[in-house]
Amino acid sequence: MSTKQKRFILPEDEIPKYWYNIQADMKTKPMPPLNPKTKEALKPEDLYPIFAKELCKQELNQTDAWIEIPEAVREMYKYYRSTPLVRAYGLEKALGTPAHIYFKNESVSPIGSHKLNSALAQAYYCKEEGVTNVTTETGAGQWGAALSYAAKVFGLEAAVYQVKISYNQKPYRRSIMQTFGATVTASPSMSTRAGKDIITRNPNYQGSLGTAISEAIELAMNTPNCKYTLGSVLSHVTLHQTVIGLEAEKQMEMAGEYPDMVIGCFGGGSNFGGICFPFMRHTILDGKQTRYIAAEPASCPKLTRGKFQYDFGDEAGYTPLLPMFTLGHNFSPANIHAGGLRYHGAGVIVSQLLKDNLMEAVDIQQLESFQAGCLFAQAEGIIPAPESCHAIAAAVREANKCKESGEEKVILFNLSGHGLIDMASYDQYLAGNLMNYELKDEDIQKNLDEIKDM
Amino acid sequence: MSTKQKRFILPEDEIPKYWYNIQADMKTKPMPPLNPKTKEALKPEDLYPIFAKELCKQELNQTDAWIEIPEAVREMYKYYRSTPLVRAYGLEKALGTPAHIYFKNESVSPIGSHKLNSALAQAYYCKEEGVTNVTTETGAGQWGAALSYAAKVFGLEAAVYQVKISYNQKPYRRSIMQTFGATVTASPSMSTRAGKDIITRNPNYQGSLGTAISEAIELAMNTPNCKYTLGSVLSHVTLHQTVIGLEAEKQMEMAGEYPDMVIGCFGGGSNFGGICFPFMRHTILDGKQTRYIAAEPASCPKLTRGKFQYDFGDEAGYTPLLPMFTLGHNFSPANIHAGGLRYHGAGVIVSQLLKDNLMEAVDIQQLESFQAGCLFAQAEGIIPAPESCHAIAAAVREANKCKESGEEKVILFNLSGHGLIDMASYDQYLAGNLMNYELKDEDIQKNLDEIKDM
Repeated sequence: MSTKQKRFILPEDEIPKYWYNIQADMKTKPMPPLNPKTKEALKPEDLYPIFAKELCKQELNQTDAWIEIPEAVREMYKYYRSTPLVRAYGLEKALGTPAHIYFKNESVSPIGSHKLNSALAQAYYCKEEGVTNVTTETGAGQWGAALSYAAKVFGLEAAVYQVKISYNQKPYRRSIMQTFGATVTASPSMSTRAGKDIITRNPNYQGSLGTAISEAIELAMNTPNCKYTLGSVLSHVTLHQTVIGLEAEKQMEMAGEYPDMVIGCFGGGSNFGGICFPFMRHTILDGKQTRYIAAEPASCPKLTRGKFQYDFGDEAGYTPLLPMFTLGHNFSPANIHAGGLRYHGAGVIVSQLLKDNLMEAVDIQQLESFQAGCLFAQAEGIIPAPESCHAIAAAVREANKCKESGEEKVILFNLSGHGLIDMASYDQYLAGNLMNYELKDEDIQKNLDEIKDM
Repeated sequence: MSTKQKRFILPEDEIPKYWYNIQADMKTKPMPPLNPKTKEALKPEDLYPIFAKELCKQELNQTDAWIEIPEAVREMYKYYRSTPLVRAYGLEKALGTPAHIYFKNESVSPIGSHKLNSALAQAYYCKEEGVTNVTTETGAGQWGAALSYAAKVFGLEAAVYQVKISYNQKPYRRSIMQTFGATVTASPSMSTRAGKDIITRNPNYQGSLGTAISEAIELAMNTPNCKYTLGSVLSHVTLHQTVIGLEAEKQMEMAGEYPDMVIGCFGGGSNFGGICFPFMRHTILDGKQTRYIAAEPASCPKLTRGKFQYDFGDEAGYTPLLPMFTLGHNFSPANIHAGGLRYHGAGVIVSQLLKDNLMEAVDIQQLESFQAGCLFAQAEGIIPAPESCHAIAAAVREANKCKESGEEKVILFNLSGHGLIDMASYDQYLAGNLMNYELKDEDIQKNLDEIKDM
């Protein structure tokens, strides 16, 4: 047993004072989101009806590399940040790998995942602009829980649409949101036009993030003094999540190492971008050789098998058209337990970076993800969220390659959240009741054909 | 919003190197446990059939104030310790109190509670002595989860008897133990004589910690190379938990304050003793004026309404006779959701301290505990375990007294664990389906009469 340092934690005054906006440093800028009616490039004011103004400006800001974290948000960060950077000696030993594996432990945030980093920011800006009510979507419930608490912190009322499959698979996340004082509705619901339409077409539809987003936007647009908030995909959400990578950069320095690869699971891209972008800055600006690996579920493979084109961010088509890797906004993902990864598209920044070969993507089957999750749990004592299991699985693959090659590579991955509310899925995995999902090319193509003229 | 420091974390080399054994400093030593057959004072070797030898020695050690933490255990502590000491500005604001409230956040341990502190130590000593299998009991499952993971760390097989009411109320804690590789059985079960006996007498019995302890001891005694481990009550368990208070002492110094009162919830006494004893050392040795408040459930009030006398630690009478505040080992507690507090007796050290007026106890009804828990959740973002809610409720009472008197007292309580696996009980609380339990004097007396000649 090594007596070397295991955890690296920053003193409170080292918590970042700025978020990092990679758009400013990208040599090829992301293409602009388009107004779906005029097909003209979106201006911040086009988004004002939906989001707080400051967030609209952040969304389209391609010039300022550093955005100051408001003091009130940073003060709230201090309650749980920095999160620890942990050297995974237990996992290394279990794998017998010479690789040095580190993980950034976002699971120790009060709400159990990285989502609070952006929820606090979004709730703060809403409050500053006189908003009284916020709406949002949530898949597994990690984002919904974060937004519910952040709304409470800043004195806002929160209404959350939770994807029906997760609402039923993970009832306790609903309880958590309600304990924080939020209203929670299973999506699709009969409370919005978008929800009614899809229920009419498909009464047994178990929901998707795309549909829940449509419902939440619709409620926000029809409610006075109410704004919509989003848990991933958009550039301002990823911006807020860069606090993860900025801390990790300093913490890796404390550990005296620099990652050869940085890994995050991938739903819309916010936790992935959050941990990767601060490191990628050195690749873009200084030519630093680092691999950035997005781990997506094989059943929802927009990065590995989707197409780069303009598409809606939601199912009903309320959002601007976004230039992204997508499976088509009508894509209905299989009912895997990683609810937070069941989304058809990738954020515009990540999509451009993938196009430019600045990052790579791998797809992970459900059984491989849970196998990696159980291995990690027994080795490190932390039960990871099913979403995070995908990042772990990708890290395990790389660590095993190092075992074969004998290379002492440094692997950093983001443990985006714990899986304590997801134990029903572990139960099913341990009982042998979970399955992989094979997705046929023609099924992907069918959805892509539907959006080919957008 | 204050910009003062919120979290206090020790550097890795400040993690305690010794546990604190208060028995050595107590002016009135605890009375000795007795061999139930001979009624003679117990010697360490009397306990060897049940526990690892080193633990037996620690149990009866009344001379050494400081016991060195084995390096392998301290190395494992480094993965999650020090736990943060947090200034609860949010709770202070919600209460409008001038009191300064601090909590020690044991909920960020990998398994979500303080229990890992002793589980690692017990598993380590068992491994050192060549043990291959360990058994234990668990109520809510916090201890069982900790022991399951600790067993995995040191390469032991674990078998856990979980109190039936909790096994059914909190199925996900069973899943957690199974994910760590343990075997879990609902207690009472048909797998032991103790279990069969009680099921025969009372087929619908929902179990208690006392019964689960009997089953786990019986299995250990009938299995080669197997030892029993315990999650609370005994002096060596509390010894290991003093790492909490020893850290908190240094962290309060970092905060520039000293607690006027230290509060812990109370089941068998290990988290309470763990946070209090290091501070109480200054009361015993230097006359420091500090209040130590144990918060027990009103439905299981051994400290506030029990009797100090010799009694068994388990239902079937397999343990030595312990001098303790007890409700009688046949006491069957109401089915409150704080499963970890459903135990009939108090550890021998705490019992002596209460007798000597070095500490005090309060009883908290179930509804008051959940009310305090929800208030804390909304104010601090952390959903507390139902057990910990009792400590919060006691802290809230004291903070409200400060509001009336205008005193800026410093309150420290132990947040022993999070309640993410206990959301079903929050659901029921929010739906208005939980109740208080009134315990009649004659019902308490009936159980005490049964043990009066022991």
